[in-house]
Amino acid sequence: MELISSNKVSNGWHKRYKHSSQTTQCDMTFAIFLPETVNEGKKVPVLYWLSGLTCSDENFMQKAGAFKKANELGIAIVAPDTSPRGEDVADDENASYDFGLGAGFYVNATQAPYNKHYQMYDYVTQELPELIEAHFPVNNQKAISGHSMGGHGALVIGLRNPDMYTSISAFSPIVNPSNCPWGEKAFSGYLGDEPQHWQQYDATVLMTNYDQPVKRPILIEQGTEDQFLEAQLKPWLFKEAAENASYPITLNTHDGYDHSYFFISSFIDEHLAFHHRHFVSRD
Amino acid sequence: MELISSNKVSNGWHKRYKHSSQTTQCDMTFAIFLPETVNEGKKVPVLYWLSGLTCSDENFMQKAGAFKKANELGIAIVAPDTSPRGEDVADDENASYDFGLGAGFYVNATQAPYNKHYQMYDYVTQELPELIEAHFPVNNQKAISGHSMGGHGALVIGLRNPDMYTSISAFSPIVNPSNCPWGEKAFSGYLGDEPQHWQQYDATVLMTNYDQPVKRPILIEQGTEDQFLEAQLKPWLFKEAAENASYPITLNTHDGYDHSYFFISSFIDEHLAFHHRHFVSRD
Repeated sequence: MELISSNKVSNGWHKRYKHSSQTTQCDMTFAIFLPETVNEGKKVPVLYWLSGLTCSDENFMQKAGAFKKANELGIAIVAPDTSPRGEDVADDENASYDFGLGAGFYVNATQAPYNKHYQMYDYVTQELPELIEAHFPVNNQKAISGHSMGGHGALVIGLRNPDMYTSISAFSPIVNPSNCPWGEKAFSGYLGDEPQHWQQYDATVLMTNYDQPVKRPILIEQGTEDQFLEAQLKPWLFKEAAENASYPITLNTHDGYDHSYFFISSFIDEHLAFHHRHFVSRD
Repeated sequence: MELISSNKVSNGWHKRYKHSSQTTQCDMTFAIFLPETVNEGKKVPVLYWLSGLTCSDENFMQKAGAFKKANELGIAIVAPDTSPRGEDVADDENASYDFGLGAGFYVNATQAPYNKHYQMYDYVTQELPELIEAHFPVNNQKAISGHSMGGHGALVIGLRNPDMYTSISAFSPIVNPSNCPWGEKAFSGYLGDEPQHWQQYDATVLMTNYDQPVKRPILIEQGTEDQFLEAQLKPWLFKEAAENASYPITLNTHDGYDHSYFFISSFIDEHLAFHHRHFVSRD
């Protein structure tokens, strides 16, 4: 692991690292926020944050305004990149913003040429937490959250791994990617044209078929003035699936808010408090 | 005035505007945050924020994390750009980051070709507040703050206009630009080579010669790990000048913090509270 930069912030530390990933077969960058309680030798729980299309590890860390509350609650935050990167990594042939670099969709690609590097599901659920738990003063308690494409990732990863993440949240998530233009483009490119291969990465399908004994709490925020609400996000489909599955979730809608980090920064403190409530104290 | 964008944030609104400026003879962009109290017909005071080198109106608004506290306290925030812009506006011949575009230094340039557009002192102290007070639900109470080059601007503008700004603050300011590489380059380029023309824009010189009856409160934050501390910023020179002038100021130094917005976001709430205390209630 190579330290890229380090900044003190809100009494804690924001650090960026680069490491060679076996999963994605390229160098990966991530950022971590460590609260000041780690200075007292305390191991802290980790919130994994998955960002949206075009983002890197930097957007959340620079724009969400999460550090004051995270420091107060004693929560580390880890933000991975949104795709593999590097000269060797295949991009969309049209260099579009919604496929390829910056748009890994948190799946394990099966289609060439993307299957070589685009293994973001395994990277986020296996290699990255192992790396974090080996190198930083964190315990094994994890929660997951994200925005838009990353909200999709958080819901999918949380629902498929209820023993791993104690709570799940999302801002403006793509809840039913099999059924919207962004998801259809990404899934056909990464997973091929047969929709049955898409289901394991579709939060609404996963919710519809949910049969595990543990139901982790889920909190979703959605702005009413989000420009992608009707065509891409459709949170009501996930809400309906949850009701049919008798899985309690909270979906808050907010008048006037859009799809930007201004929305995330307005409600991130409530999500940190939500995840904090569900971490088990292991002092 | 042309509205560029509008985002709801922390129950208030962030808006960007473009307008044709008579002072700088080009289109100027600014951003404004309006707290929710304006919805009740209340006129609110304004904190003017001056950004540092390479910044625009966007950096503070995206990275400072100021909106929750500003909304709570009922303070509007206005962030102008850091220089005139446009094809017609002269830039540094080497396109350097510390002179020309993005580096107006809040002075009225006297040297060709910069004197045509680089009239940022008059823009910030005259045209911009007149525009804001004519078009937004604000009262005439103003405070001023800024970062680095903008901290220089805030100290200079505040000290020269004690009847206009009720309090002054700065993060990591260039306090003595006549006496550091950034300032010497900018002032010789905009103001010519005779240092006596620089004094009206040098906070340490202004403090040394301060003779006005009103002494507005001044609050400065400085990180000890700021990479520009020794060569460019030198806040101790301003502190010493203030002591010699019997002008009480507060200079807080913070272990481990650097020059970035991570530092600003860590202490912006305290600056908002400081300015709020000095606004006179005019309900």
